[in-house]
Amino acid sequence: MKPVKIGICGLGTVGSGTFNVLARNRRDINARAGCEIVVAQIGARRDNPACDTGATPVSRDIFDVVDNPEIDVIVELIGGTDVARELVLKAIAKGKHVVTANKALIAEHGNEIFLKAKENNVTVAFEAAVAGGIPIIKAIREGLAANRIEWLAGIINGTGNFILSEMRDKGREFADVLREAQALGYAEADPTFDVEGIDAAHKLVILASLAFGMPLQFDKVFTEGIGKIEPQDVGYAEELGYRIKHLGIARRNDRNGVTGIELRVHPTLIPARRLIANVDGVMNAVLVQGDAVGPTLYYGAGAGAEPTASAVVADIVDVARTLTANPEHRVPHLGFQPGNLNDLEILPIEAVETAYYLRMLALDQPGVLSRVAQIFSEAGISIEALIQKEPAEGQQHVPVIILTSRVVERQLLDAVQAVEALASIEGQVTRIRMESLGK
Amino acid sequence: MKPVKIGICGLGTVGSGTFNVLARNRRDINARAGCEIVVAQIGARRDNPACDTGATPVSRDIFDVVDNPEIDVIVELIGGTDVARELVLKAIAKGKHVVTANKALIAEHGNEIFLKAKENNVTVAFEAAVAGGIPIIKAIREGLAANRIEWLAGIINGTGNFILSEMRDKGREFADVLREAQALGYAEADPTFDVEGIDAAHKLVILASLAFGMPLQFDKVFTEGIGKIEPQDVGYAEELGYRIKHLGIARRNDRNGVTGIELRVHPTLIPARRLIANVDGVMNAVLVQGDAVGPTLYYGAGAGAEPTASAVVADIVDVARTLTANPEHRVPHLGFQPGNLNDLEILPIEAVETAYYLRMLALDQPGVLSRVAQIFSEAGISIEALIQKEPAEGQQHVPVIILTSRVVERQLLDAVQAVEALASIEGQVTRIRMESLGK
Repeated sequence: MKPVKIGICGLGTVGSGTFNVLARNRRDINARAGCEIVVAQIGARRDNPACDTGATPVSRDIFDVVDNPEIDVIVELIGGTDVARELVLKAIAKGKHVVTANKALIAEHGNEIFLKAKENNVTVAFEAAVAGGIPIIKAIREGLAANRIEWLAGIINGTGNFILSEMRDKGREFADVLREAQALGYAEADPTFDVEGIDAAHKLVILASLAFGMPLQFDKVFTEGIGKIEPQDVGYAEELGYRIKHLGIARRNDRNGVTGIELRVHPTLIPARRLIANVDGVMNAVLVQGDAVGPTLYYGAGAGAEPTASAVVADIVDVARTLTANPEHRVPHLGFQPGNLNDLEILPIEAVETAYYLRMLALDQPGVLSRVAQIFSEAGISIEALIQKEPAEGQQHVPVIILTSRVVERQLLDAVQAVEALASIEGQVTRIRMESLGK
Repeated sequence: MKPVKIGICGLGTVGSGTFNVLARNRRDINARAGCEIVVAQIGARRDNPACDTGATPVSRDIFDVVDNPEIDVIVELIGGTDVARELVLKAIAKGKHVVTANKALIAEHGNEIFLKAKENNVTVAFEAAVAGGIPIIKAIREGLAANRIEWLAGIINGTGNFILSEMRDKGREFADVLREAQALGYAEADPTFDVEGIDAAHKLVILASLAFGMPLQFDKVFTEGIGKIEPQDVGYAEELGYRIKHLGIARRNDRNGVTGIELRVHPTLIPARRLIANVDGVMNAVLVQGDAVGPTLYYGAGAGAEPTASAVVADIVDVARTLTANPEHRVPHLGFQPGNLNDLEILPIEAVETAYYLRMLALDQPGVLSRVAQIFSEAGISIEALIQKEPAEGQQHVPVIILTSRVVERQLLDAVQAVEALASIEGQVTRIRMESLGK
């Protein structure tokens, strides 16, 4: 079989990691692919000291790589959505296969890109776009192909998980840990993408489309960050046997015979005994519930030069293996053949049903709790657990923590509003959603 | 694309699960495969009440299915190695692809079967042979194709893990839990395959060949069962921050520039904080360490009708997707192209290096421990931890537990023999290997 020639566009962390892994494990990788994989050209605005490119031609204009007629596969590792989109579409138009690690590009422009790829009989591979080195896209798209996926839940942003792990282990404040994460290089100078959940939302949209066989719909994800999580909530959750994790959750919600899809990223209390509750630090994990297989979990490094390169190179090997295959027989981009995608409604967050952790400050006097309990009872919401803490020195109010039964969000919001209107309740009620992640 | 016709041979637990999953999720499975998957014939000595085969023709002679010229893919779910081998080789000779869940068949006859498959340009898929519904074969063979795999360790026998979990949670005796497992249907009437580690050894051999790209060598696995684990060892391990798990371990062992492979199944102390230490009951998990990706873990149900069927059907979809592909471009059976398999030596257990948990009964008098410590010190073995328990009522001997540094097994055995020869030590020293499963 003749060599497969690839062009690497972008020589940052992932680009140099990819070059280095391909060079170091060349013998094994070629023996797996059944052909030689050659980096024919690199496009990069500047050199990277982490990477000795040797005799490989380096162009300062990444579009030179796309124009190179010798190259079969373009590896897009520049990030961002504007230039990356242009680069990828141009590569596709020239009949080149594409491998990318760009979650934002796939989440926001994937439908367009996959359509063009189909028209041009090329593959766009994106394993590295979700959960770094964990082969989660392959697992859902191929490994679980027998299943009707019921739901999935993932810790898919390492920075956020690092922050929550530190808050729990050391009782630290959010802002304090964030500064450390930035100093360690885990979090960007502008941490918005990580802590607001946008990065996780990009990844969740991709996973959900693979799981349910539907077009990518990034604008419909409900996203809530971890910036408002207080150490006391982390502590109370622990006391009740739970951990707070920032999860991306996608779930089929069959009601009245109509399937709606929940797509949501938010802090979530989950039982501490669940395996995924024990995934700490910058590690990622995705739990997938299939109707035949039951729960399966995939764990590993969600970011970093070589873990991400591991997924990029796996995609390159996959593309090499299917290079000459009939395009109709390749694994479809979203797991389902394009003509067979499902038209499923994404539910608004108000229609989603979850249990709730609620924390409020209540006047430490008789009758207050029974008034609160009455409001929930009248709204049809059961109280599963309730903790009332001792008042702090000189304080008239005490923290009250309530765990509710599962309830539709709209209904919960109404009850919370009524509680907040009570004179005996100080300020707002803190709300964190809960999931059992069991059957 | 024309329908793919499959023949299911064997209608036991997995066979009926496969038929049922294919029927129930037919629409989704066909939309993923890009073609209709039709069960054209079933071969089964008797009907299975768990499975309504409807209009599908059922033959009492499974070889009728192989002889059916319409059938593209034979799904071998009869188990065992004699008839199954004959059936699979006959199917291959007739140019049919094969999907099997048969770990013993692949572990013991895989080299022969893959050779015949290559000669006949057909695929033999066996995802269901290891860890049931977890797509671990796909993960190692494709998802981690970029990596030089350093080691893997798996809980790959659900029965054994159930027994050890119960012993730990409830302080129960081995024999007692085994009886319950048999009553629950987890363990066979003859539990040898499970508790002696033979089932785990079959699976480990397959995983190791995929990880290191070498022929299957079942006769070279070191196998030790869990029958001798006592509740007191489970308790002492817990006290020291460890759990005892029955692991299959495959590891590259580079010494003096020569790579040897460790292939071993045995009870193992692992740190309680590791994710895999928290995989309980009948669940399976495999931890794989790659040089680029770092540690990744795959968790799910390792047995059962539908979890196993999940893997069988995923293989059927894979075969359907590659049915018309150039055989040279398909994923190779053992991950590496057949001409590129590595000739790696499997090390004897005496050459393997691990840390050790040792338990002995020592006379409760001065000087005994220092004599024991001296023997280890002279053998170059460090003592990492030591617990001496109080003597039981009326006993002159006390249990002493020692955790050693990593040491080559041969060297440890010599030291243990010297300790056992001491007059102050009663009976034999209990030995359990330890692994940190970290970097």
